[in-house]
Amino acid sequence: MSNSLGHEVAHLGHVELFTPRPQESLDFFVRVLGLTENGTDGDSVYLRTWDDYEHHSLKLTAAATSGVGRTALRASSPEALARRVAAIEARGLGVGWTDGDTGVGPTYLFRDPDGHEMELYWETEWYQPPEHLRPALKNQAQAYPGRGVGVRRLDHVNYLAQSAESNGRFVYDTLGGRVTEQIMLDTGVISAQWTHFGQKSYDLVYTDDWTGSSGRLHHIAFATDTREDILRAADIALENEVFIETGPHKHAIQQTFFLYLYEPGGNRIELCNPTGRLIFAPDWEPVTWTQAERAKGQAWGLKTIESFHTHGTPPV
Amino acid sequence: MSNSLGHEVAHLGHVELFTPRPQESLDFFVRVLGLTENGTDGDSVYLRTWDDYEHHSLKLTAAATSGVGRTALRASSPEALARRVAAIEARGLGVGWTDGDTGVGPTYLFRDPDGHEMELYWETEWYQPPEHLRPALKNQAQAYPGRGVGVRRLDHVNYLAQSAESNGRFVYDTLGGRVTEQIMLDTGVISAQWTHFGQKSYDLVYTDDWTGSSGRLHHIAFATDTREDILRAADIALENEVFIETGPHKHAIQQTFFLYLYEPGGNRIELCNPTGRLIFAPDWEPVTWTQAERAKGQAWGLKTIESFHTHGTPPV
Amino acid sequence: MSNSLGHEVAHLGHVELFTPRPQESLDFFVRVLGLTENGTDGDSVYLRTWDDYEHHSLKLTAAATSGVGRTALRASSPEALARRVAAIEARGLGVGWTDGDTGVGPTYLFRDPDGHEMELYWETEWYQPPEHLRPALKNQAQAYPGRGVGVRRLDHVNYLAQSAESNGRFVYDTLGGRVTEQIMLDTGVISAQWTHFGQKSYDLVYTDDWTGSSGRLHHIAFATDTREDILRAADIALENEVFIETGPHKHAIQQTFFLYLYEPGGNRIELCNPTGRLIFAPDWEPVTWTQAERAKGQAWGLKTIESFHTHGTPPV
Amino acid sequence: MSNSLGHEVAHLGHVELFTPRPQESLDFFVRVLGLTENGTDGDSVYLRTWDDYEHHSLKLTAAATSGVGRTALRASSPEALARRVAAIEARGLGVGWTDGDTGVGPTYLFRDPDGHEMELYWETEWYQPPEHLRPALKNQAQAYPGRGVGVRRLDHVNYLAQSAESNGRFVYDTLGGRVTEQIMLDTGVISAQWTHFGQKSYDLVYTDDWTGSSGRLHHIAFATDTREDILRAADIALENEVFIETGPHKHAIQQTFFLYLYEPGGNRIELCNPTGRLIFAPDWEPVTWTQAERAKGQAWGLKTIESFHTHGTPPV
Repeated sequence: MSNSLGHEVAHLGHVELFTPRPQESLDFFVRVLGLTENGTDGDSVYLRTWDDYEHHSLKLTAAATSGVGRTALRASSPEALARRVAAIEARGLGVGWTDGDTGVGPTYLFRDPDGHEMELYWETEWYQPPEHLRPALKNQAQAYPGRGVGVRRLDHVNYLAQSAESNGRFVYDTLGGRVTEQIMLDTGVISAQWTHFGQKSYDLVYTDDWTGSSGRLHHIAFATDTREDILRAADIALENEVFIETGPHKHAIQQTFFLYLYEPGGNRIELCNPTGRLIFAPDWEPVTWTQAERAKGQAWGLKTIESFHTHGTPPV
Repeated sequence: MSNSLGHEVAHLGHVELFTPRPQESLDFFVRVLGLTENGTDGDSVYLRTWDDYEHHSLKLTAAATSGVGRTALRASSPEALARRVAAIEARGLGVGWTDGDTGVGPTYLFRDPDGHEMELYWETEWYQPPEHLRPALKNQAQAYPGRGVGVRRLDHVNYLAQSAESNGRFVYDTLGGRVTEQIMLDTGVISAQWTHFGQKSYDLVYTDDWTGSSGRLHHIAFATDTREDILRAADIALENEVFIETGPHKHAIQQTFFLYLYEPGGNRIELCNPTGRLIFAPDWEPVTWTQAERAKGQAWGLKTIESFHTHGTPPV
Repeated sequence: MSNSLGHEVAHLGHVELFTPRPQESLDFFVRVLGLTENGTDGDSVYLRTWDDYEHHSLKLTAAATSGVGRTALRASSPEALARRVAAIEARGLGVGWTDGDTGVGPTYLFRDPDGHEMELYWETEWYQPPEHLRPALKNQAQAYPGRGVGVRRLDHVNYLAQSAESNGRFVYDTLGGRVTEQIMLDTGVISAQWTHFGQKSYDLVYTDDWTGSSGRLHHIAFATDTREDILRAADIALENEVFIETGPHKHAIQQTFFLYLYEPGGNRIELCNPTGRLIFAPDWEPVTWTQAERAKGQAWGLKTIESFHTHGTPPV
Repeated sequence: MSNSLGHEVAHLGHVELFTPRPQESLDFFVRVLGLTENGTDGDSVYLRTWDDYEHHSLKLTAAATSGVGRTALRASSPEALARRVAAIEARGLGVGWTDGDTGVGPTYLFRDPDGHEMELYWETEWYQPPEHLRPALKNQAQAYPGRGVGVRRLDHVNYLAQSAESNGRFVYDTLGGRVTEQIMLDTGVISAQWTHFGQKSYDLVYTDDWTGSSGRLHHIAFATDTREDILRAADIALENEVFIETGPHKHAIQQTFFLYLYEPGGNRIELCNPTGRLIFAPDWEPVTWTQAERAKGQAWGLKTIESFHTHGTPPV
C-alpha cells in the first residue's frame, strides 16, 4: 500500500518494558538474551543490543505489574519530525514536548488511539562503546558479546488494542507507515495488522485484544542473525528454565522464524529471524489472511498456540 | 550520510548481463543458482529469483563478450520518477524515454558518469506465477524451487569505473542514494563506494577500474536466505565445476558473508548473505576504510584475493 | 549398556519400503528428498543417498499396500557374520541363505521376534559412480546433488512391534547391539527402545504397536548434514504438498532435530539431524524416560503429535 | 582398512596441554571456547566440554613452554585393556601402570613411537553435575553453557612426528585403530595419516614434523554442533583478539568444516564440524591424497596456509 507520506519515520528506536520482578528480568535480558547494560535512571535500567547505533534498545522499568511503557520512534529528518508532530496534534493524540530521555534530544510525546504511550524524536546520541566493548570491525556499534542468545536488534512491538484496524490506520495516516499484512475475520473485521516504515516487513503490529482492554502488549521481539541462533536460543531457554510458549517454527504471516518466551516479569518476548525477507515494493498491497487460512496454523503446520489469544500484559 | 532527497529510488529492479556462452550461462543460472526462466526476447532470456515481485531479476543476453548491460531501478512513486528524470537531465546524463522492456512501463534511459547504461521506471507488472510455480504461502512471489542454490533475490551490482567517487556522488546527488561505506587510499582518493536506497546496506557499488576503462563490471550479487545456503552453494559449485574465486568468508566492509563464482560467460557472480545487517539511521555517516585497514584482509583474516584487482568484464 | 559381543553388526545397510503408489513415491524420493536411482529389479527401484558407499540405501517396491520390507544389516567381518547367523539360528529366527540382492553377496535371511524381515551380509559392492555423478572430492561416494532436500544417508528404522522390549532384547542378545534410550510406562512395560551398533546413538528402534499387530513400520529416517537442511526441507515439503506431520523440532529422546513427512505411499519418513551427538561410552547405561517425562513433550515443549500413536504402515 | 582387532579402543578420552601463560589460556578455554572447570591438581586445571560423560576433556598444565602432554584413550572393555597393554609391552613402548589421574581408574602409561605420552584405562568416573550445571535433558552430561563458542566435545589430536606413517602403523597394529585417509608424497612417503577407532572419521592424526623433532603437537580439536557455531566462533575470536590462523573453510581431507586459532599459550586449536560425515564401512580403504591433489588446497579452493608447515608446539 503506497503511502504518499514517504518515509517519515525512520525506524523503531527503543521501547520501555515494565516488570514486577526487575532483578530476574534484568538477568534474563543480560545473561540469557545477551543485552548490555548502559546506565540506569531511577527504577529503570537501559539495555542495548550489540548492533544498536543509539543509546539503548530497551528501558526496563520496575513496576507493580508487567506491560509496555513508551515506544520511541526516530523521525527521518527534523522536517519529518515537525510534520508528524503537526499531524499527531491535528489527530488530537498529542501530549507534548519533553527534553528527551537519556540518549535522545527533544522528544514529542503522544499516544496511539488505543492509548499506548509513544514518542518521536530526531536528535540522538550515537553510541560510543567503552574500551572493553569496542568492536573489532568499525562498521559495528559494539563488540559482539559471546553471551547467551546474542540478539542483534530490537525488531518490533506487537500491541494489543481494542481495534487493531483503527490503530493500524493511525500508523498509516498519521505516522506515514504502510500495512504489509493483515488478518480479516469472516465478519469483515481486521483483527490484526502489520505495519512498517522501511524495508523490514514489519515494525509495529496491532492485534485485537480479546479482553476489550486498552494499552496492553502482546509481545516485543528481538532479531537474531540466523535461524540457528533461534534453535540455539531454545536450548539456552531450556537450560535456564525460561518458559517457552511456542516454537521454534515459521510463521505463515510474514514468514518469520520464531521462538516465544516469557521473561520473568511475565511479558512475552519473541526471538525472530526474517531469513532474508524484505519488502521492496513501494506500492505493496497488504496481504490479507482469512479466518480459514489462519485456521491452518503456522507455515509448516504447527497449530497457533491457544495462549496467543489469552496471554497479554499486564494481565486483566 | 543523510540525503534530503529521501527515498526517491525504491530499489534495484533487474540487471542485464552479457555472455558469449549463452547456453552454459543459462544452465548456470537455472540449474546451479536456481533461477526460473520467464520468457525470452530476441537473444535474451528473462530469469527471476523466487522472491522477486516483478517480471524478472536478470536479463541474460547472448553477446560477443561478457559484461553488464542495463541496470534498472524502480522509482518510489510517479512523482519521484519525474523528479529524478529532471535531475538526470539537468546533469546531462539522460538518454530518453522508451516504452519499456517486458514487464515494465514507460522507462527513462540514462547513463551513470562512467557510461554504464541505466533505466528508471515506476510502472511494473506484478508477477503472476503459473499453476506449477504457485507458492504455498500467499505472501511470496513464487514457489521456492528446491533446485541448486535457490537464491532469493538480486542483491546488488558492483561496477568498475574510472572514478568510483564521481559515480557514487552521482548516486547521491542525482538519484538520492546514500553512501554507507567507502575505501580511501593514502592519496585521499576514494577508490570504492557503497551506496544504498533503503535499509539494505548497499545496492550499487563503484570500484575504481585499474585499467582506466569505462563501463565495466566487477560483479553482480544474489542474496541467499542463510549463511548455510552459501556453504551449500560452495559444494554445489564444486560438484558442477563452477570456478570458485574466493570464499566463503565474511567481508570486513559491510560484513557480508560471501562466495565469489565466475559464471561460464566469465562474469563474476557473488552469492551473499548479510546475516541480519540493515542500516536504520537516516543520518548514517559513511564508514571510511583506510589502505592500512584494507591490508588486513577480510573480517576473519582471509587475504583479499589478487584477482579482485585484475578480473573485470568485459576483459580489456 | 556394555555388550560383550562387541561390534558384530557394522551398520544399517538398506531397507525395503512398500508403496501402493510407486510413481508418486519414486518422485518423492528422487525429486523431493534428492535420492538417486541406481537400477531396478522387477517391481522395485533401487535408490541411493549421496554418501552411501554401497549399491543402494532404499529399495522401493510397488505393492498392494504400504509398509516395510526387508532391512539389511552389514556384519563387521565374515567371522562376525558367521557368529550372528549361528546365534540367530540358535534363537530359532533364521530363514536361510540366499545369493543376495543386487549389490550384496551371500545373505542370511531372518526375522526379528515380531516378524519383520531382516538380512545380514558381509560382501558388498562398493559404489562406482558414473561419470556424471563422480564427486569432486574423492573421499565421497557420489556427487552431492543440488536437488531437493539432498539427504546424506539412511539413518534408522523405527519398527512397530507387539513388544518393543522383546525385540530390543533380540537386537542386544542376538545381534550384539546396545540399548541407548527407552521409554518405561508406569506399569513397568518398556514401550519403546532405541538400539545402536556403533557410535550413532540409534540404528534400530522398536515401539509398541497400539493395534497389537506384527511386522509394521513406524517410520524410516534419512539424515541431513545440517539442521538448516531440515528447515529448508520443511519449505520444500510445503511447496510440494507433501504432508508434514510434525516438526521441525528437537526430540527430547536422543535430542534429534526432526521433521516427519508422509511419502505418497503413506509411509512416515523422518528427516533427522543429530547435531553432533554420538555415543562414545562402551558401557553407556540406557536412559529411561518415564511416562511423566514423556508427557512433557519434545525438547522445547512441542506436544508429541497424536498420530504418532495412531498412524503406522501398513494400515490395519 | 579392516582391522581384525575390532574396536579395542573405544574413544579419545582427554588430553593434556602445556601452556606458559596459564591464566590467559584458562580464560581462553573457559570464556572463549565455553569449557567448564572441574577441579585442579597442582599446576593443572581440569576442564570439560558440556557433552563429555567423563570427568574432564582437557588437562591444562602450566609449564615452561607449550605442547601436548599425555593423551588418554579409553579401552572398550577390561579385556580390551589387558590385550592392548600386552600388545604395547610386546612392542616395547610400555611405561607401566599408575593409579590413574583424577576421574579414571588404573591406568597404563606408554608412548607412541615418536615419544608422545599416552595412557589407556577402562575404569572411569561418570560425571555428576552440580545443581547449577544439571542439564534440562537427562540424556546429556551437563547443561549447555550459553557462553562463548560452547564446544561439544574434544574431537581429535593431530601430532607432529618424525614419521607419520610409523606412528599411524602403531595405532593400527598395536591399538587396533584404522587408517581412513592419508597423504602420500611423490617420493612415496606417507606424510600424514588419519586414524580412527569408531565411526568418527578420525581420532588421532600424525603429520610429519618438518623440523625432524619428536613429541610435538600440530593441534588439538574441539567439535561444535553446527557449522554456524564455527562461523559464530570466528566472530567471537575476532572480538576477543584471538589469533585466527585460517578458516572458516572446508578441508578436502575428511571434509571437516574448520577454524584454526592459537590459544594464548601458543598451541594451535582447531574448531571443527564434520557436518554429518561418519565412516560406516568396517573395511574402509584409506583414501590417499597425492602431492598434486594437495596442491589444489582445501575443498573450496583456499590455499593451505603456510604456517601449517612451520608452526608446531613447543617451538623448536
